[in-house]
Formats: sequence, structure tokens, C-alpha cells
Amino acid sequence: MRASTIRQILRYVAEMPEIISFGGGMPDPSCFPREEIRAIVNELVQEQARKALQYGTTVGCIELREELLKFMNSMGFKLEGVGNIMVTSGSQQALDLLARVLIDPGDLVVVENPTYLAATLAFRLFQPRFVGIPIDHDGMIIEALEEELRRLEAEGRRVKFVYTVPTCQNPTGVSMSMDRRKWLLELANQYDFLVVEDDPYSHVLFKPVEFKRLKAMDDEGRVIYMGTFSKIICPGLRVGWVAAESTIVDKMVIAKQSVDLCTSPLTQLIAAEMLRRGLLLQHIPNIIKVYKTKCEAMLESLEENFPEGCRWSTPVGGLFIFAYLPEKVDTEKMLQKALERKVAYVPGRPFYVDDSGGNTMRLNYSYPTLEQIREGIARLGEVVKEELR
Amino acid sequence: MRASTIRQILRYVAEMPEIISFGGGMPDPSCFPREEIRAIVNELVQEQARKALQYGTTVGCIELREELLKFMNSMGFKLEGVGNIMVTSGSQQALDLLARVLIDPGDLVVVENPTYLAATLAFRLFQPRFVGIPIDHDGMIIEALEEELRRLEAEGRRVKFVYTVPTCQNPTGVSMSMDRRKWLLELANQYDFLVVEDDPYSHVLFKPVEFKRLKAMDDEGRVIYMGTFSKIICPGLRVGWVAAESTIVDKMVIAKQSVDLCTSPLTQLIAAEMLRRGLLLQHIPNIIKVYKTKCEAMLESLEENFPEGCRWSTPVGGLFIFAYLPEKVDTEKMLQKALERKVAYVPGRPFYVDDSGGNTMRLNYSYPTLEQIREGIARLGEVVKEELR
Repeated sequence: MRASTIRQILRYVAEMPEIISFGGGMPDPSCFPREEIRAIVNELVQEQARKALQYGTTVGCIELREELLKFMNSMGFKLEGVGNIMVTSGSQQALDLLARVLIDPGDLVVVENPTYLAATLAFRLFQPRFVGIPIDHDGMIIEALEEELRRLEAEGRRVKFVYTVPTCQNPTGVSMSMDRRKWLLELANQYDFLVVEDDPYSHVLFKPVEFKRLKAMDDEGRVIYMGTFSKIICPGLRVGWVAAESTIVDKMVIAKQSVDLCTSPLTQLIAAEMLRRGLLLQHIPNIIKVYKTKCEAMLESLEENFPEGCRWSTPVGGLFIFAYLPEKVDTEKMLQKALERKVAYVPGRPFYVDDSGGNTMRLNYSYPTLEQIREGIARLGEVVKEELR
Repeated sequence: MRASTIRQILRYVAEMPEIISFGGGMPDPSCFPREEIRAIVNELVQEQARKALQYGTTVGCIELREELLKFMNSMGFKLEGVGNIMVTSGSQQALDLLARVLIDPGDLVVVENPTYLAATLAFRLFQPRFVGIPIDHDGMIIEALEEELRRLEAEGRRVKFVYTVPTCQNPTGVSMSMDRRKWLLELANQYDFLVVEDDPYSHVLFKPVEFKRLKAMDDEGRVIYMGTFSKIICPGLRVGWVAAESTIVDKMVIAKQSVDLCTSPLTQLIAAEMLRRGLLLQHIPNIIKVYKTKCEAMLESLEENFPEGCRWSTPVGGLFIFAYLPEKVDTEKMLQKALERKVAYVPGRPFYVDDSGGNTMRLNYSYPTLEQIREGIARLGEVVKEELR
């Protein structure tokens, strides 16, 4: 089943209110800071319309980039200035621009296996060769990466970059251990590759995990960091950002010129004001509380309803649980039966770059209500049991 | 001089308030319907936050697509339904998506010569071969196009598509005559190519010109129409759209998935409400009045200040005048001298696909004030006179 087919099914499903869907990746709308946004837009349109409603520069509004510089350096980054930061139309655009700038046909790109589906989708247009590295509860297995690097070196081949979601990984919700983070960066220096750190979820961490962002540990300027406001303000702004060496940022800005000229200054300035007024940091604990409760409810329901032989990831944060069913189950085929029982999920295979994972599924817990989570997982448990009979 | 170099100069210039710039392509901010937008956003965030602040579908919000369907069919289009319409993040994104979907390396793409710079920029990544067709005061010279098509046919080659800004062309502001429009579509049918109609300015037409949009004359589904709210509401929304055969729309939607997932539903719904409430059509006459006055002021100043041997286009609408200086003037070199005199323009060569036009320049009249237009053109006249001495 192609990724676009799955999207079509899920879009179809989204329009059928009687189906409980664990399929999307949408935040809980009760977490949107709507009153804050309303107040900010009122001020912006009255006092800064010349800027907020006009074309902006391709690199992004200076007001937002200055706030981001403070925000990220407060996270331990050592960025020199706003020249290290560009704004993107959601972090999906950052993936596309990155691919345009970095990938030549045949280039080796390392990803976690499974990894974020829409990242490989964005990269594919530029024809890389993917190298998938397995993950466990401590994230990408760096030992396996090192073996692969050695093997490739022996063949005279080099990796262009490693793409990772180190914190609250998509689709599994696990976090890369500190040891592995250090090891990954050592390998990057030794084997001379870039590291792309996609970090949409680290502010929605609900377990006490010791971690540093890779960009905060980056001494050689090898890490290209991607952030987004989609999970901490709301996706409707379509504002993300990149923090990297200015040489890389400059290339991505040139690519962005022909892609969409600029990101909406109106939505950029909403994000800048959320940061400047300290509203973002005030707001995040609410989100964490909601997602922690929902994640726990889903884990509990899985425990109660899924039959023996099934296992699943234990997220430290983020929006997803990834489930592994017994090998003989094909979750793509099973989707039809699930839909008949009025419950939906995303089959796991498209998250793998080697066509494995046919027995896996991704479950979103951020969007459905607690009641829907309990009822939906119960229905899904029935479907799985039937499938195993 | 590369297009990106020019952009850098103009960005630099934009930050120096003492320089009068005719360089950008920005609307007059006094034309932004700020009070309407403020009122709409207040309602949207209070009543439709679940939709406005959430992820939207890749194809675009149904509310906006339905309004666009009515709006475009009121312009004489014969669109069957919303399946013919997708929303884009500004019409620049439409150009990028179109290139991704249509252009294979080596494909022949016909453009007006000169043409919209950022269109060829977007197309170039996919390595087409450009065929430039000259224009006069009646737009693209279709006779020259037909000759070219005959020549190419004799060589066994076919054109993939013709890209045109038929109404208030960028950079010249001229409009394609009705006879030529009909002839162009006849050729499209005869030689089997697509026509891309980029139409950002036709609602800002300030001379009584008889015209129909190509899409309204399209019997064979060959026209891909691109619209935008940048010049009729404001650019800061970053909302454009495409109207085409659903087979083409579907392909562009798949490409958009990996590019930015979706356009901001917040800004989409602002545009939808501007249409639904009839505010857009009420608002447009103000814009036309402002631009007409500014264009006339610039034409008058050119007449007064530019020396013999110079000529320029007479726009019927839009944002630009295109000036042709005597052959011996190199407007790229002259730019430095103009900047010393505190006035800026865009050298014309990058608008040409055959590296000609070294003696031309594009002048924007929508953004500067009337006073700046008079003073700036006087300064520029001095620079040109000096250059000719």
C-alpha cells in the first residue's frame, strides 16, 4: 500500500465521525492557546499591519528569528546569531528544502527504521539511497550504525547525512539515550557526515528523561536542527524553523525563494509574540498534562485488550505509540476489518525503508478523547484477536 | 548578475529608508483590509479554532474551495466542482508544484521574453529548456510562437507547456489581445500542449481592456489557472490557488504533501470569509484607484525626466512599468550609480531567458508613495542622462 493511499483512506476516515481514528498526527484542539492568539492578532493587525500583512523576507521575520535565537540558546545551543536561523512553512518544508540542498541522486541517507514517513517522502524526490538502522527503547542502535559505516567505508562510500528524531521519536515515542547521542556525534565527526535533528516533540516530554538536544552537543557545526510550533502552539500557523551553520541556512533560503517566497508574516509574528510575552512556556505544561493522561490511557487499554504476542513502545513523550503484532498479521490487510469495526490506525510498513514492518501499526493518542481511546483500543483488540484466530 | 544577487541588493536596499526603491513587487499597505481581517480573525479563533488552528487537508479547506469555485465560475470558468481547485501557499508554490509534476529534464517550456523572474527560477530546478517568445503592447506575439512551434515540429519536438501572464503581464503590465488569446488556445489544441495562466493582477486592471481569462475560453481542459490573494487582500496570508483538470490537481496535491503538508487553515479561512461576505469585491475598487494614480504619476515622471531614446511599457494594470533604455546602457552596471543617487530598480536581464535585455529595467509603482515616485524617477532620470553622456 502506498503512503498516499493510506493518506486517502485516513482522509476519508476523518470525515466519518462514527469511526474512531488513531490514524492522524493532530494535536488536541483543547490545547490551542486561542485566547492568546486572538489578543495577539488584534494587536498585530491594528499596530503592525504594514509588516504582518505584507510580503516578508525569505529567511523569516527578524522579530521571530531573534526570539528563536534566545529560545534555542536557552536550550543550550551555541548559535552565534540570527544568521544561523531561518523560518520555514512548518517543519515539513524544512525537510523538503534540506533535500533540495543536500541530496544528489544516489546519496546515502541514514534513517531510523521505522522513521517519520513524510521525511522519507520529502527526500525521495531527490533519489537518495536509504540506509535504515533499527531502534530499540533507547533510540537508534548506534552500534548498528557504526557497523554500517565501517562496511560502507570499506566500499569507499560515504553517508551524506543521518536523519533522526532523537527525542520522542516518530513513530515509536522513544528517546535516544545520552550515551548514544554522544556516540552518534563522535561518528559524525569521524566519518564526516551531517546530522539532521528533527525535534517536533521534545517540549511534550512527559517522562523524566535525561537528554540534551544533539544541536546543544554539536561542536563541529554538523547538526541541522529543525523545530516547529505545530505541537506547542498549533499546526494552523504553519511555522517551523531551522538552526544550522549559516552556510547551510543560506543555501536553504535560496531554495525557499522559488518554493514559496516567504512564510506568512502574520503567523510568524503570532509565534514571535507567544515567545516574547512568555506565553509559550506558560502554556506547555497544559499540553504535557493532557498528552500524558491520554498516553497512559492508551497503554492501559492496550494492556487490557490486546492479546498475547503483541507488544508496543512506551513513549516518553510525543503523540504516538507503535505496536508490533505477531509476525503473521498483515496490518495493511487488517485495516479493512478495523474500519468495519469503526476504528482506524496507520499500518506500519510505510514507516520502514526496507519494506519490513508489515505486522506493525502506529497509534495516535493526542487527538482522540479519553473515551474514544478506551473504546477504540477495545474494538481494535477484538479485530486483532479475530485476526489471530 | 544572478537573480539571487539582485535579490540581495534589493533586500539590503529595503533596509535603507533614504533610498527610494522601485525594486520590489509589494502592494501598497494602505490597501490592506485590516479592519475586515481583524474582525474575521476574532470570529474564527473564537468560533472555529478547532479548524482554523489545526492541520488542514493538503488540497485546501473546503470552505475556501467552495467560495473559489463560485468566484471563478462567476468569471466565466466552467469548473465542474471543487475537485478542480486546490489551495497553495501563495501562487509561487503553485509554480513550484507545477514544475515538479510537469517538467522532466529537457522538456520545452515556452515563456514570454521577458517573463516573471520567479517563475523561471521555480521551473529551472527541474531542468527544462526555455523557449522565449517576444512580446509587444498586445502581449505575447503569437505569430512568433506559431513559427517556433512549426520549426520544433519539423525537428520532431513538442512543447510541454506555455507559461503566460496574459493580463497585466509581469514585468511589462501589458495585456494579451483577445485575438491572440484565441489563437494561443487554437495552437494549444493543434500542437497538443498545456497553457499555464498565471493571473495575479487581472483584478487590478485600471484601463478599459476587453479580455477574457484563458481558462474561461478553455474547451479542452488545457489551461492550468493560478490565482492569488496577494494583490487583492494582502500577501501576508500566503494564499493562492490552482484551477485545472482534476487529474492535474490530484498530482499537484500529492506533490504538496511532502512539500508543506497544508497551507495555513487560519489564513485560508480569512480569505474564504472575505469572499463569502462579499468584502473582497467591495474592496477591489480602492486598490484600482490607488494603483491607477500611482501608475499615471510614474508615466508622467518618466516622460518628464527620462532622456530621448528611452521608451517604456504602458501598463493596463498590475504593479510594474518596464523601461527600455538605449542599447548601449547596461542597467546592471548602472544600478551601482543609481544606488549612490539613492534610487533602486531591478535590472531587466534576469527577466529574459536568453540573456538579452541588458538595457532594460523593471520599475514598481505600487509600493512607493506618489512623492517618492516623482522624486525617485527624477533621480533615476539624472542617472540615465549621465550614463548616456
